[in-house]
Amino acid sequence: MYSNDTNLEAAKQFSGWHSIINWGQTHYRDRIFQKDERIPTRSGLLYLVELGAIRLVDRGQLSIDITKDFEGIENSSEIFLGFIQAGEAFEIVSRPPFKIEAFAHIEPTKVIWLYWHDIDNWNNFRRELLDLFRYRQQRQLLWLSTLGQQRAIDRLFGFLSLLIEDYGTPCELGKCLPYYLTHAQIGSAIGSTRVTVTRLMGQLKKQGLIVIQKDNLICLPR
Amino acid sequence: MYSNDTNLEAAKQFSGWHSIINWGQTHYRDRIFQKDERIPTRSGLLYLVELGAIRLVDRGQLSIDITKDFEGIENSSEIFLGFIQAGEAFEIVSRPPFKIEAFAHIEPTKVIWLYWHDIDNWNNFRRELLDLFRYRQQRQLLWLSTLGQQRAIDRLFGFLSLLIEDYGTPCELGKCLPYYLTHAQIGSAIGSTRVTVTRLMGQLKKQGLIVIQKDNLICLPR
Repeated sequence: MYSNDTNLEAAKQFSGWHSIINWGQTHYRDRIFQKDERIPTRSGLLYLVELGAIRLVDRGQLSIDITKDFEGIENSSEIFLGFIQAGEAFEIVSRPPFKIEAFAHIEPTKVIWLYWHDIDNWNNFRRELLDLFRYRQQRQLLWLSTLGQQRAIDRLFGFLSLLIEDYGTPCELGKCLPYYLTHAQIGSAIGSTRVTVTRLMGQLKKQGLIVIQKDNLICLPR
Repeated sequence: MYSNDTNLEAAKQFSGWHSIINWGQTHYRDRIFQKDERIPTRSGLLYLVELGAIRLVDRGQLSIDITKDFEGIENSSEIFLGFIQAGEAFEIVSRPPFKIEAFAHIEPTKVIWLYWHDIDNWNNFRRELLDLFRYRQQRQLLWLSTLGQQRAIDRLFGFLSLLIEDYGTPCELGKCLPYYLTHAQIGSAIGSTRVTVTRLMGQLKKQGLIVIQKDNLICLPR
């Protein structure tokens, strides 16, 4: 049972998944998105990814202006917060100054939206969904720990390992992240810059800790 | 209903909380811990905090030895991952090299442990518990975003704001974190050092963004 032995594969196999997807289609709650198109989201709604993959980002960070008395200046950069794959669900919570947004990371990406009360009569589905959030909470705790590391190279390698563990697909060498991320996106996740990430990726490659495959996909060798 | 309007207060008011606590006591599943005592935890068990507060930390981080070919060297420092207050629950998942541990942050701290199947017949309680994990997952996403900021001062202020929002108690000035954290502990959470935290806390104080009250408690003024 998933609750006693958490893993993403099990969590994704919602028993009620197909009937919910059908319900969404019948009720015109589905839409297809192109690469990098923003999913219009609202607090309180629940989004199921039927196809493709979602990239969660934060675009609302404030920076403290250290030259003046406090004045928050908006930080234009986007912070990468993870993927939501087909078979998974997400919700977006509003809490200024954070501005969490969802983008289709690949195309086509198909999303169904629901209210929580829409699934009031699908108790098992609801439970499986909450188990998925519970699993994600456990993984985020590991991610938080990784970002607590002082050296950027440790944050980088820890971050890539967790991401590939969750979203990687088996390849000849080991496991490969099936999505492309720019060095700037990776940097935004680990509190570092594009330039630093490029340098440190080179170091990880040299040490054989990662391999870059065609289409710039990152692979963790066995 | 909590599921449509998530907040910690609502999440903590488990309807079945008291009966579960009684059940735990009747079945000798409760224990009191002194300050900084480690809670012996096992994967697959669920822990309810009846009294006091828990500090979650990771003590298993590996560092990449950049002078050699890859060799993970154990990082002796402890990374602070958050609090679990009375009325909340936690579980510890094993995933090497991470080594997540729970400590009593204050005394007395009283913890009840259960198996998930112990609450199979308490469906509402189970659901409320999963809603709590769902809420925590949402908050951790904001925390991840905060740690993605490049400047340590932004990470520091974002981290303190989130922590005080979740765990602060009202005080004359605004809201105050009722637990003491060392600068080293704060630094470990935001990927920074004790020395940097001390310097940046001074800056935040000077700008009036935080106030330090007696017993070194951190307060966010209104």
